[in-house]
Amino acid sequence: MRAMLLALLLSCAFTPAQTSGPPERRVDSVDPFIGTKGMGHCYPGATVPFGFVQLSPDTDTAKYSLDGKTYRKEVYRYCAGYQHGDPTIVGFSHTHLHGTGHSDLGDFLVMPTVGPLRLEPGKADRPGSGYRSRYRDEVARPGYYAVQLTDPGVKAELTATSRVGLHRYTFPRSAESRLVLDLVHAIYDYEGKVLWSRVQVKGPDLVVGTRHTRGWARDRHLYFAMSFSKPFKAYGQQGEPASVYRGFWRKWDQTRNFPEMAGTRLRLHFDFDTEEGETVLVKMGLSAVSEEGALANLRAEVPGWDFDGVAAAASAAWEKELSRIDFAGTASQRRTFYTAFYHSLLGPVEFQDVDGRYRGVDGAVHEARGFTNHTVFSLWDTHRALHPLYTLIQPRRAGDMVQSMLAHYDQTPWKMLPVWSHHGQENWCMTGYHAVSVLADAWTKGLRGFDGERAFAAMKATATKSEFEGLGDYLKFGWVPDEGNDASASKTLEYAYDDWAIAQMARALGKPAEEAEFLRRARSGRALWDPKTGFVRARKRDGSWREPFDPLQTHDQGYIEGNAWNYTLAMPHDAAWLVKQAGGPAAFGRRLDQLFTMPLDDRFFAGTEDLGRVSMMGTYAHGNEPSHHVPYLYAWAGQPWKTQERVRAILGQMYQDRPDGLCGNDDVGQLSAWYLFSALGFYPVAPGSGQYVIGAPASREVAIALENGRRLLLRAPRLDAENLYIQGITLNGQPWDKAYFRHADLVRGGEIVYHMGPRPNKAWGTAPGSLPDSLPLE
Amino acid sequence: MRAMLLALLLSCAFTPAQTSGPPERRVDSVDPFIGTKGMGHCYPGATVPFGFVQLSPDTDTAKYSLDGKTYRKEVYRYCAGYQHGDPTIVGFSHTHLHGTGHSDLGDFLVMPTVGPLRLEPGKADRPGSGYRSRYRDEVARPGYYAVQLTDPGVKAELTATSRVGLHRYTFPRSAESRLVLDLVHAIYDYEGKVLWSRVQVKGPDLVVGTRHTRGWARDRHLYFAMSFSKPFKAYGQQGEPASVYRGFWRKWDQTRNFPEMAGTRLRLHFDFDTEEGETVLVKMGLSAVSEEGALANLRAEVPGWDFDGVAAAASAAWEKELSRIDFAGTASQRRTFYTAFYHSLLGPVEFQDVDGRYRGVDGAVHEARGFTNHTVFSLWDTHRALHPLYTLIQPRRAGDMVQSMLAHYDQTPWKMLPVWSHHGQENWCMTGYHAVSVLADAWTKGLRGFDGERAFAAMKATATKSEFEGLGDYLKFGWVPDEGNDASASKTLEYAYDDWAIAQMARALGKPAEEAEFLRRARSGRALWDPKTGFVRARKRDGSWREPFDPLQTHDQGYIEGNAWNYTLAMPHDAAWLVKQAGGPAAFGRRLDQLFTMPLDDRFFAGTEDLGRVSMMGTYAHGNEPSHHVPYLYAWAGQPWKTQERVRAILGQMYQDRPDGLCGNDDVGQLSAWYLFSALGFYPVAPGSGQYVIGAPASREVAIALENGRRLLLRAPRLDAENLYIQGITLNGQPWDKAYFRHADLVRGGEIVYHMGPRPNKAWGTAPGSLPDSLPLE
Repeated sequence: MRAMLLALLLSCAFTPAQTSGPPERRVDSVDPFIGTKGMGHCYPGATVPFGFVQLSPDTDTAKYSLDGKTYRKEVYRYCAGYQHGDPTIVGFSHTHLHGTGHSDLGDFLVMPTVGPLRLEPGKADRPGSGYRSRYRDEVARPGYYAVQLTDPGVKAELTATSRVGLHRYTFPRSAESRLVLDLVHAIYDYEGKVLWSRVQVKGPDLVVGTRHTRGWARDRHLYFAMSFSKPFKAYGQQGEPASVYRGFWRKWDQTRNFPEMAGTRLRLHFDFDTEEGETVLVKMGLSAVSEEGALANLRAEVPGWDFDGVAAAASAAWEKELSRIDFAGTASQRRTFYTAFYHSLLGPVEFQDVDGRYRGVDGAVHEARGFTNHTVFSLWDTHRALHPLYTLIQPRRAGDMVQSMLAHYDQTPWKMLPVWSHHGQENWCMTGYHAVSVLADAWTKGLRGFDGERAFAAMKATATKSEFEGLGDYLKFGWVPDEGNDASASKTLEYAYDDWAIAQMARALGKPAEEAEFLRRARSGRALWDPKTGFVRARKRDGSWREPFDPLQTHDQGYIEGNAWNYTLAMPHDAAWLVKQAGGPAAFGRRLDQLFTMPLDDRFFAGTEDLGRVSMMGTYAHGNEPSHHVPYLYAWAGQPWKTQERVRAILGQMYQDRPDGLCGNDDVGQLSAWYLFSALGFYPVAPGSGQYVIGAPASREVAIALENGRRLLLRAPRLDAENLYIQGITLNGQPWDKAYFRHADLVRGGEIVYHMGPRPNKAWGTAPGSLPDSLPLE
Repeated sequence: MRAMLLALLLSCAFTPAQTSGPPERRVDSVDPFIGTKGMGHCYPGATVPFGFVQLSPDTDTAKYSLDGKTYRKEVYRYCAGYQHGDPTIVGFSHTHLHGTGHSDLGDFLVMPTVGPLRLEPGKADRPGSGYRSRYRDEVARPGYYAVQLTDPGVKAELTATSRVGLHRYTFPRSAESRLVLDLVHAIYDYEGKVLWSRVQVKGPDLVVGTRHTRGWARDRHLYFAMSFSKPFKAYGQQGEPASVYRGFWRKWDQTRNFPEMAGTRLRLHFDFDTEEGETVLVKMGLSAVSEEGALANLRAEVPGWDFDGVAAAASAAWEKELSRIDFAGTASQRRTFYTAFYHSLLGPVEFQDVDGRYRGVDGAVHEARGFTNHTVFSLWDTHRALHPLYTLIQPRRAGDMVQSMLAHYDQTPWKMLPVWSHHGQENWCMTGYHAVSVLADAWTKGLRGFDGERAFAAMKATATKSEFEGLGDYLKFGWVPDEGNDASASKTLEYAYDDWAIAQMARALGKPAEEAEFLRRARSGRALWDPKTGFVRARKRDGSWREPFDPLQTHDQGYIEGNAWNYTLAMPHDAAWLVKQAGGPAAFGRRLDQLFTMPLDDRFFAGTEDLGRVSMMGTYAHGNEPSHHVPYLYAWAGQPWKTQERVRAILGQMYQDRPDGLCGNDDVGQLSAWYLFSALGFYPVAPGSGQYVIGAPASREVAIALENGRRLLLRAPRLDAENLYIQGITLNGQPWDKAYFRHADLVRGGEIVYHMGPRPNKAWGTAPGSLPDSLPLE
């Protein structure tokens, strides 16, 4: 094992960044193709930081069967609509989820064609059977994407602002040049997905429209305004029979040049005569509010036709965001780091018109006052590291996200904070109510851009919603009984952690009774400890255990996306108790070693679609989130050097500088946020604690420009392939012996020096008092 | 014939109204059941004048097959959702079209039930198979409806404001009392009609929701806010499977007490414990803008729970509207007159929220500034008499309707005035572009509440839209060629009349070139005159006639809702030319006589679903509109006394004081408006001329309170069953020998006296210069 680990480490030399020549731009280190092949579920297209528009090529979207019986692997594979290396591109759609394990969006696909009209996408293995095209010469940079579409002979270039996608197509000479707008196309596509769509042609260069879709987001309205740099000579639609289109009387030929088209199967074309090398630009503004809003967004963000200017502005916006962290390393290290950073900034996106109006989860239009509304909250994933990352490096936006969650709470008739929310919808995906973790983390770390009392009321209401999956039983029995509850063990553990986070908020607000109540609830995970097997297990109402039990098995055990080996450790707030149950620190350490090193046979992977071998280390599964904090638990075993080893191994093995370089779904940036924290040398094991457990820095020098104007310099001057272990740490010149940092220490700025050496210093970080806080043992 | 005519007339004695006792309220003379059986397509429920809400019982709605192959008679029969005498009531829905020949609406059905939960309506012939109920003791008055539902033992009472329906249900004692809210129910129902619906429970007495439907209106959004006088103890839905409801994960039992329900097949129930005789009130505000708008409408119009007060206010609103005309007559005459008047005020309804916002035909939300927005424009029908009625008796509202049409024009991407429009949709139903008639009629009669130039521009744009059905060919060939055009002869005639109306507008605005151009187009009907047969016929491009030709046949002849006998006379603006072609006045008179007296066999009625024998007089068909002016054409034959005879006969035969008393669809009040004008003694043969052809008064005394503050008294002091013929007329004491009145004469107010006698005065109204204007002969 050690040999393998070192081999991995040797592949990345720890050299400082170049210091001569023109300053290297951080955007030049981003490779948007990383994570676009295999499990990453990333898209390579054009977007700006936290931009609502993600204009990106779709190579396929797969079909889903609504009866729920066939959740095809292909649908999962195409969560982002793209797999690197696919033979064809279907077209360019304006919305994509980043890294999710469930698919949706893919709105408003545009595709250039030349030749006879084809309004069906056609088959990837039958070139010419539809409008899709083979391609070459893909280029992707932050805010820019280009490709040569070989079938029509058109070069396509894409860029974006937050609410506008801008396309530039370079056509050959033809009297049959077209742009297809496919309103049937969707990611997470199935029969009946499009509830309704309507397009109005306002003039020969302006089209507005809307689409209402079911899907993962159950009931999603999206509007667009689409402007062309050159007037089309004709237009039309196919696919929508007139009998559906009108109830009674036919007045017009509604397939050609009729300026209102509507229905559930609309595919449109806009026709042009083009000269050789002529460019036709299209810009599409999006809004979830109205067509008028889409038009206002379009006009505000891209008033003209300066494609290169918009692309340069997008690049500059990325450079500005990425400049919050200066990371020194080899070109490949920087590419991995800055691409992870880039991926972490695709996360919850801005979701409002330029005038501040947005569609709430109640379906009504609201105005965001005093904050910027955000959406795409994949909280089961992102409460772990992505939101804490924002709290550290961009607390202003973190505050916006908190406000967005509180607005969501206000707007729901069921009065709960978001669970998995996007585009004004609650998807109820995954378990727990982890928004409370985000709120507690923000508040306890000093964010004051929102009303703490209001936040606490929402947290408490959310945590006492007895109708919510098993929560009533959890309150009654002390755990979520296995009967009638999927993933009862996972739910119990997650509720317990979330309750601990609420208790931290209660303490910060001076609410001792509520603090005590939620601390009591936070111990609920203990009830699932089975002393006989030594695992946390799903438990029935009568206290008996779910059988049969297989601690290696992920399915049918009462867990979700993890097995007993991993979930038993999913008590980040109660680690000391766990250590005690395991038989003390040494035994706990052996348990962790066993987790990371046990051999796994192929059976483990059967039916576990999220995971490939690359994402595994023993039975530790990095491709799913429940164990993301586990490498850092060695601190409680008194073996912080093993955290350093494991973290380095994971950084090296599971984040590679290539399209299939992500070992699992990036999950709206959680996987990347793990990378960022770990590369800095610390990780928020229990958000809400205000503490980061120290790991292993990955760069000799990192500088963080904090929003409060201060600068935090992280140095590891001796770090190289030999000197991998922390010998000691100095914080602003003072020795730092604890196994963790406090948030307050970091945001004061200054300098942390990791003193590295070739062998573990087993004394550092292991003295009494070195450990982060856990729940008291009783 | 004469014998039959007199027999009919004798059935209604011409006696003056009571003058002793308390003053009779006009609302007491309205019987909302008239027209609810058979062809009238009226509903008996509660509404206010021009109110957006029509809260009425639905006895059935029938199912339509979307493939267009089966347009079932039943669907037609249930255009208003109600047929008098049906065995059961399904429930009470909030929107209904009045008198139309195409069905739609029926939104938001509420029904009380007692006992086990049943959320399917069930079958009419199987009591207890669903929530529908047998009933007795129906009562209907303007603004109020009541019925005893015998299956649950619940008394239901309904009243309304413009935007709110208020229900009062008197329950028996039960722990299983419920109110069903069926969001699948619809008039013009078919599989897939509901594109989406969503309900949010905001509290135990407040629910908001929305429904998006296809239908006749292709793409209609309606929102509601529903408040209960008593909190429900529980609620739920059935019919919407969770697999459709959520894409991925089940969190809740979404059938019981889950406060957000959505899908395409939602049927909800709200449960109560009730004591014997306990009333539960429900009020539902509607909006086409948003749920917020619906709630604001609800709170503004019905803030409390004073059912009787709201019903009294509705009654008072009706009394106020009906008091514009004082009509003297027997109880039955007054019932027929005031019910017709009532029916004429159900017409284009107010379509905006209390804050002036409404959903335009572009799907966007607009604000009505300086006018009240109206919808339900059945212009092929209503341009004839209903809109001219408004121009005469309520020009302010007529101006609002003109403004609404201009706003519609502005909002369409195709830039045309409405053809058949309701709830922010263009249905494109029937032929012509008769909005221009309404605008020209209003302007030439002196309405100045809108911009004439803007109106003319819209009229001209509408009339030059060459893509519109056959209009390009009409402009090219001089008529709509029969090839590829349904109803080519009807279209030609209608375009020609509409063009004449535009010419009147052009003249009024001082546009001689455009006046000449549209006068030229107004002669287009002449091109269809076939001298060989003496009929106006469908003609091909090469000038040949459509064959085979049967002048009695309505179908497959190039006409719509009429045959050659009727359509040949459909040139109200070109009557003099028609008379000349027919061989002069005497021959023309014989032709009219033949039309009204020819025997018709049963074959005529085959396949003519709109018409029963009662609507026929010879081959004159009063149940359809194209001939509504024809009885008045005797003026051009020099035989005004025959107009007097025919009009009396039609008044007596085709408007009866009983549920099946209407001979045809009331068509949003056109049939009733014909009654009103005819009963006053004149009719607008060619709207836009500013002239009314004189017919036969039906009352000894009618007083019209004009909006300009003046009073027009119409007296026929000697009128009785003997003295049926006009001997002469005096207008403010001066003899009036013309066969027509001018609008300007009427709105000055004063007194018109019809001097009646037992025999025709063949000299009156027949001297040279007595005739209304027609197009010049060349």
